[in-house]
Amino acid sequence: MLDGCPPGLPISVEEIQVELDRRRPGQSKITTQRKESDAVTIVSGVFEGRTLGTPIAMQIPNSDHRSEAYSEMKERFRPSHADYTYQSKFGRRDYTGGGRSSARETAGRVAAGAIAKKVLKLGCTVDICSYVERVHDITMPEMVEFPSFDLVEANPVRCPNPATAALMEERILKVRKEGDSVGGIILTRVRNLPPGLGTPVFDRLEADLAKAMLSLPATKGFEVGSGFDGSLLRGSEHNDLFENRDGKICTITNRSGGVQGGISNGEELYFRTAFKPTATILQEQQTVDQEGKETVLVGRGRHDPCVVPRAVPIIESMTALVLVDHLMRHKGQCDSFNFNNLQV
Amino acid sequence: MLDGCPPGLPISVEEIQVELDRRRPGQSKITTQRKESDAVTIVSGVFEGRTLGTPIAMQIPNSDHRSEAYSEMKERFRPSHADYTYQSKFGRRDYTGGGRSSARETAGRVAAGAIAKKVLKLGCTVDICSYVERVHDITMPEMVEFPSFDLVEANPVRCPNPATAALMEERILKVRKEGDSVGGIILTRVRNLPPGLGTPVFDRLEADLAKAMLSLPATKGFEVGSGFDGSLLRGSEHNDLFENRDGKICTITNRSGGVQGGISNGEELYFRTAFKPTATILQEQQTVDQEGKETVLVGRGRHDPCVVPRAVPIIESMTALVLVDHLMRHKGQCDSFNFNNLQV
Amino acid sequence: MLDGCPPGLPISVEEIQVELDRRRPGQSKITTQRKESDAVTIVSGVFEGRTLGTPIAMQIPNSDHRSEAYSEMKERFRPSHADYTYQSKFGRRDYTGGGRSSARETAGRVAAGAIAKKVLKLGCTVDICSYVERVHDITMPEMVEFPSFDLVEANPVRCPNPATAALMEERILKVRKEGDSVGGIILTRVRNLPPGLGTPVFDRLEADLAKAMLSLPATKGFEVGSGFDGSLLRGSEHNDLFENRDGKICTITNRSGGVQGGISNGEELYFRTAFKPTATILQEQQTVDQEGKETVLVGRGRHDPCVVPRAVPIIESMTALVLVDHLMRHKGQCDSFNFNNLQV
Amino acid sequence: MLDGCPPGLPISVEEIQVELDRRRPGQSKITTQRKESDAVTIVSGVFEGRTLGTPIAMQIPNSDHRSEAYSEMKERFRPSHADYTYQSKFGRRDYTGGGRSSARETAGRVAAGAIAKKVLKLGCTVDICSYVERVHDITMPEMVEFPSFDLVEANPVRCPNPATAALMEERILKVRKEGDSVGGIILTRVRNLPPGLGTPVFDRLEADLAKAMLSLPATKGFEVGSGFDGSLLRGSEHNDLFENRDGKICTITNRSGGVQGGISNGEELYFRTAFKPTATILQEQQTVDQEGKETVLVGRGRHDPCVVPRAVPIIESMTALVLVDHLMRHKGQCDSFNFNNLQV
Repeated sequence: MLDGCPPGLPISVEEIQVELDRRRPGQSKITTQRKESDAVTIVSGVFEGRTLGTPIAMQIPNSDHRSEAYSEMKERFRPSHADYTYQSKFGRRDYTGGGRSSARETAGRVAAGAIAKKVLKLGCTVDICSYVERVHDITMPEMVEFPSFDLVEANPVRCPNPATAALMEERILKVRKEGDSVGGIILTRVRNLPPGLGTPVFDRLEADLAKAMLSLPATKGFEVGSGFDGSLLRGSEHNDLFENRDGKICTITNRSGGVQGGISNGEELYFRTAFKPTATILQEQQTVDQEGKETVLVGRGRHDPCVVPRAVPIIESMTALVLVDHLMRHKGQCDSFNFNNLQV
Repeated sequence: MLDGCPPGLPISVEEIQVELDRRRPGQSKITTQRKESDAVTIVSGVFEGRTLGTPIAMQIPNSDHRSEAYSEMKERFRPSHADYTYQSKFGRRDYTGGGRSSARETAGRVAAGAIAKKVLKLGCTVDICSYVERVHDITMPEMVEFPSFDLVEANPVRCPNPATAALMEERILKVRKEGDSVGGIILTRVRNLPPGLGTPVFDRLEADLAKAMLSLPATKGFEVGSGFDGSLLRGSEHNDLFENRDGKICTITNRSGGVQGGISNGEELYFRTAFKPTATILQEQQTVDQEGKETVLVGRGRHDPCVVPRAVPIIESMTALVLVDHLMRHKGQCDSFNFNNLQV
Repeated sequence: MLDGCPPGLPISVEEIQVELDRRRPGQSKITTQRKESDAVTIVSGVFEGRTLGTPIAMQIPNSDHRSEAYSEMKERFRPSHADYTYQSKFGRRDYTGGGRSSARETAGRVAAGAIAKKVLKLGCTVDICSYVERVHDITMPEMVEFPSFDLVEANPVRCPNPATAALMEERILKVRKEGDSVGGIILTRVRNLPPGLGTPVFDRLEADLAKAMLSLPATKGFEVGSGFDGSLLRGSEHNDLFENRDGKICTITNRSGGVQGGISNGEELYFRTAFKPTATILQEQQTVDQEGKETVLVGRGRHDPCVVPRAVPIIESMTALVLVDHLMRHKGQCDSFNFNNLQV
Repeated sequence: MLDGCPPGLPISVEEIQVELDRRRPGQSKITTQRKESDAVTIVSGVFEGRTLGTPIAMQIPNSDHRSEAYSEMKERFRPSHADYTYQSKFGRRDYTGGGRSSARETAGRVAAGAIAKKVLKLGCTVDICSYVERVHDITMPEMVEFPSFDLVEANPVRCPNPATAALMEERILKVRKEGDSVGGIILTRVRNLPPGLGTPVFDRLEADLAKAMLSLPATKGFEVGSGFDGSLLRGSEHNDLFENRDGKICTITNRSGGVQGGISNGEELYFRTAFKPTATILQEQQTVDQEGKETVLVGRGRHDPCVVPRAVPIIESMTALVLVDHLMRHKGQCDSFNFNNLQV
């Protein structure tokens, strides 16, 4: 359910499905081989191909739910999953597939994000591009140009450097063979973002982005601009000096990552999100059962040896949703009145 | 203004002032020499030494406001400050000291956090301890034990390793002498946190913590548990296996950082926050004026060469506020009803 | 979608269906003869007959959607409907049945309310009873006792006074025959509500109830306790004096309606909601078309000549949802800590 | 604290003070004779006479706080006040003047409302006018024209019908002499409101207005348009037929009260708010003490025999705040994009 979307936006099921297919299991040999079609239908809020401005309900039925390894998961907590914490918090849990803690919930975020992306694209030509910058210890070299959608989608890893992508793919296949998993880092870049998005103090733009990213399964870190490494620089090295580039105020460098004082400055917005290795591995691991008795659990099922390639459209979607929210807030508060130019 | 505080909590102005004094400028030779007394008064919500349950208003007047370097700041944008973004967003700004973008607003967070800390301490013996783990490229060695408040406060850097603290202090004094600045990293640790805090999907505990930290001035990154480096491990290395320790379900390692599936698991919660070097430096920097004309600006005023020592109580406060919110939500939803044990 | 429900609550599809059937069209000869089965399915959040504490998604497909009178509604605005305002706000609208402004959306409220009612019933034996007090100018005499569910359901009008109910039914049938409609008033009574629900200032209990009721289609007014007529009394007549009734602090009268200073006082909570006559009537009415040209519109379709009998379960549901929210807030803030009894 | 105000709005302390003076005690012989100056200062968010777009903090110190009748109020619950409910909810209360339940909190609403009014006035020429329509059983005749500010302010009752105002004033003086109190009804009218404010389903414009009004001390009812009496009409009498008036789509009647389907329709918005008689009366009343022992309490202090004249600016302020919120939401979602006119 997506509420508050501007009316009149042209949107089709097919456009949303494109994004869902990027997240879909079974899309390549390096992802889980589960076969979920993730076919979306629009239930309300779109009429004659355009958004109505009223809430948009969409539905993505699960077409390949198998209650695998139930008897084991029912009794034993999977390490580094949400089994134990859900049981602790709620006193019960749905042990047949993970329930609400299943990463399948991210399909809904992608469907909503597809609409948010289109608002940004048509409303102010904003482009969002996320890609895999690191898998395990394989990191791609810095890329200055803004990569095209096709370049990112050209390989199953979604790394726009083909040579690095090949190495990453090899690594993922290797760890899968060993019944293991790896994590990685996704870089997100946004261009043409207007200055002025974000608010002072609590709802800074980077604060809302950080919350959005850390709300995703398997994420462990977020950094904007220079991030953690920025703390290694001196102020004289880190500050982004201003210049006048063809009549436009710009910064010469962009260690701020496109946001200063919590508000976008018109430069490229970029941030990184870190993912841990997939918790489900096909190896025997020590655990306890519901009564606290120590036992072992052998991972089964069809899981991703590395979640980052499929996380790319999810990250883009959450980015788009945060940006549209702030765009509407900004327009509602600042752009809609012209008090600054009022003579008194 | 702090709303929703449990009633009956014993709290004094003095207890709040202790925390404010940790944030106060001029507290040591490595901080800014501005002299703000930051004396707090409680305006409402506390009666006869106890919270009433109604909103708590506090006031911290600014006792040392100098409108220094006005004429320059009025016309020229300070690099890596909020001058340009506020001007872009709002079409105007308070150029006499930074206005709402001034880090002075964090005094309010510390006052509120002092009360939140006491709720956690008296309500469920939760301890929060933040300390400086890195300044510039000087990093303290890992510390297994949970440091005492006194150990952290034993030196002006707030690094509980005395040898590292001495090196950090030396570095800060050196860069100040050079009119420059440095950043760093703060590690936050929370013990005795009950399992069950956080909610599925959007309001994960680490998501709300990430937002809280990234809402602070000068922060550029957040990571929980293994964080960015966790992506370098395999699943078989990263997973936290369960064991039964004296009748209690625990994890053997804690790479999750005390949170799994967005919900606390009863282990130590820990996360890191990265700070960029202070933007104000006492050097000449290139910039533009309001009309976009290129010019230079020489930093003046009394600023911190490194904000991390003073940021320690601010980080602790935001942590406490997030945890109390989730504690009350959890209790309201899960602990207050006993439906799980109801026979039907 | 219902989020934040306490875990472990026993709930069945059948219990929810009971409430939906009370709202369902075609249930008696005085309601619309549309045949919507309104059969609910639970999609998530309930497992093995108990709530999980995670979001509860339910689905109620529309089984009798007819795109009647389309060509007319597409071009002409129905008087006192939302056609014109939706068109004005959004620049477009779904003209095939009302879209989001259709009162069918209240089915979702009833499904959620059925769960909220059970939380109140099992959690603290709270009973909610709404009934029709007035239809057109026919008003039932005051009823002191708290009517049973069966008494309210004993006639299609849902008025617990059988003699008045018969008159009301006759009136509704008469106006329907004349192609017209009438409105009425619903009285809601809540017993066993614990004192302490509601918060100071903005989220007063009656404020949230007022918002909930006025968010329902066709409502025009809300009053709690003595309401509008209370302004006719003097303070000496209106004040509810305290007495000690068998060791319990009670009020002798209850003109406050169970709430004082925005917070429940343990007396019976009662309030009234006013409904206008149904806007759709089977008569020719003057209107304009989309271009502003004056024209006429003849109401068609199958509509309720009086919405109040079917609104009874909707009102009860919104009441339950507001009360559960405040119950959880109160427990989370006040009941979960015991600071008041802490010795210092 | 007012957050989210559009930047650049010209506003002065004097303009805010005008509204506060309308609410101030001691302004005429029919109000309480307490002498609170209610002098406001602007602490932040306004710079060089214009709003900055950042939070606006204002302060209104209490200049005439007397801890009158303490010993009694400490032990005994005042009938129909919040003493008992605050004690029940929080386990303690500030008994020296009412604390958070004191109607003095409405001063803050009026200060914020003064700014909201100016946004509406300068932003889209919206006029808000509230006036006293009834005191006790004295009701003014219907007034078709929109009364001027001066007409409402011409007498201390704030009833724009001078003859009725004189009767009302006489009645208020009479009941005060008798140590008693009366209530009344305030009518609020808003003209030039653009169509499109309000959202489908939960945040209907009238729902948010109802919550705002019922959040005020001493209010017992809210009705919009035809309200409770609207239920006495048939649909054929109640419906507002459309006409084309000089090229503009209008309704011939306005029983809807300016809102249809939860969204403003461009007609005059009007609603009524009912106030109970002041709870504090100068008579002996039965009550209980904190231990539940029955006793009596004699009202003391300086209280309003009728709150409605002073409530007029408070109602206007809450109206303005709700309308500005919805105006900004509407502009942010609908007015800021032009997708409806986009060719695809």
